[in-house]
Amino acid sequence: MDRPIGVIDSGVGGMTVAKELMRQLPKESISYIGDTKRCPYGPRTAEEVQRFTWEMVEHLKKHDIKMLVVACNTATAFTLKELQQKLTIPVLGVIEPGARAAISFSENRRIGVIGTEGTVRSEAYPEALTAIDSSIFVNSQACPSFVPLVERGIFTGPEALAIVEKELQPLKDKNGIDTLILGCTHYPLIRDVIQEVIGASINVISSGEETAREASLILSYNQLLAQSGEDPTFKFYTTGDYQKFRKIADEWFEGPLDIFEVIELEPVPPM
Amino acid sequence: MDRPIGVIDSGVGGMTVAKELMRQLPKESISYIGDTKRCPYGPRTAEEVQRFTWEMVEHLKKHDIKMLVVACNTATAFTLKELQQKLTIPVLGVIEPGARAAISFSENRRIGVIGTEGTVRSEAYPEALTAIDSSIFVNSQACPSFVPLVERGIFTGPEALAIVEKELQPLKDKNGIDTLILGCTHYPLIRDVIQEVIGASINVISSGEETAREASLILSYNQLLAQSGEDPTFKFYTTGDYQKFRKIADEWFEGPLDIFEVIELEPVPPM
Repeated sequence: MDRPIGVIDSGVGGMTVAKELMRQLPKESISYIGDTKRCPYGPRTAEEVQRFTWEMVEHLKKHDIKMLVVACNTATAFTLKELQQKLTIPVLGVIEPGARAAISFSENRRIGVIGTEGTVRSEAYPEALTAIDSSIFVNSQACPSFVPLVERGIFTGPEALAIVEKELQPLKDKNGIDTLILGCTHYPLIRDVIQEVIGASINVISSGEETAREASLILSYNQLLAQSGEDPTFKFYTTGDYQKFRKIADEWFEGPLDIFEVIELEPVPPM
Repeated sequence: MDRPIGVIDSGVGGMTVAKELMRQLPKESISYIGDTKRCPYGPRTAEEVQRFTWEMVEHLKKHDIKMLVVACNTATAFTLKELQQKLTIPVLGVIEPGARAAISFSENRRIGVIGTEGTVRSEAYPEALTAIDSSIFVNSQACPSFVPLVERGIFTGPEALAIVEKELQPLKDKNGIDTLILGCTHYPLIRDVIQEVIGASINVISSGEETAREASLILSYNQLLAQSGEDPTFKFYTTGDYQKFRKIADEWFEGPLDIFEVIELEPVPPM
């Protein structure tokens, strides 16, 4: 049997990455944890985010995962380097794929980034972008209301529109970006509203698609692509409310998922 | 000083990859060889293509390259695995990036591929595509007249249109693809004509952009991104006619290149 790809997120946002993994890598099995109980990660300290992330990783080790996708921008910003150093499997975050895609799409090298407070505070996107091209201008904006909105299952309608308009206003006032990175995996669920507010002429980059592309390359580069020919399995776990998690998953994924369970994460001793 | 990326091609086609490398990785130096004298590689035997490719690689070893990009589909089809096994630096071909991008763009999973006779004969694209997704339908078509056309510097006009129309006819007759991979790095130079003939609704995938994206990831993954802060250098070498090579480069690249020389490749003993 082929070993699964592990996907972790603070909640349901990582499903946007998981869905793209299923579409672009249809032979691959997935084991997903959404730490819904402690979502959002955005306002938490770096130490908390690191601890929660390691708890999810420890749980996924029991699944013998062959690659880890940190499908949460906040967790990527605070833990990616440490995970890459300490784990022996490839570890992929969602920040660099979005940054590389933005560089590839942007014509005028003025790039907007929206994310949680934690992601914006970490400056992970400006760092990733200017590591590749120092001439890039980055305009970051925290949108703390978006994750709670999405976790409530509200993706469209007047409430979503009003919240998105309010939070994107500062970004709209500073003109000139031609590309906007959705620097949080929850945001693709309200992508249509974001695109409507920011304007049709702006390239809106979703980390899900980009991360799946890069996961495909990293699996191939490390000769880890699934080879058994067996049907893949999709296992989804939440630390929080089963019904809410399930409802969003059923709306987001087209096919049925194999396992859906509530789990309790065990505390991990400090590293 | 940062070590350069090595780029090799049968002629001028690899410039489409080099240009994207410069755009997406503006800090990186490039050393390029176009084996214009022995172009096209398409009709040659696998043994010839392998030998010529190793001659270019041996030459680039003197440049202390940190990564090799095989910017020629025919050379990728016949030599990539061997190069990856025998070289200690990362080696990237142009086939898998195009395949992964096509999978990411295609909605109906019917993908067309155009390339040289050698590339089509090798079945490298169908293999790369179905390794990731067995349900994909691939329609391949060799277009042997395209490389000679591009090497003559003819990118538009009635002659280009007539040749492209004639060679794409069999692909147009078999309907249903929604994505077309330009499976030869020369083809982006006549991309506008190809798009006109195949129709505006078809996604046309150029390996250049995709390969540069993946080169960016592989450099980052291996901690090989340029870090000196010095200006990069761009060195271009041809085995053939200086004037013709130079003329196409001047049309294709916006900025000036540092070194432009005719070189002679030394025979390499059989591996």
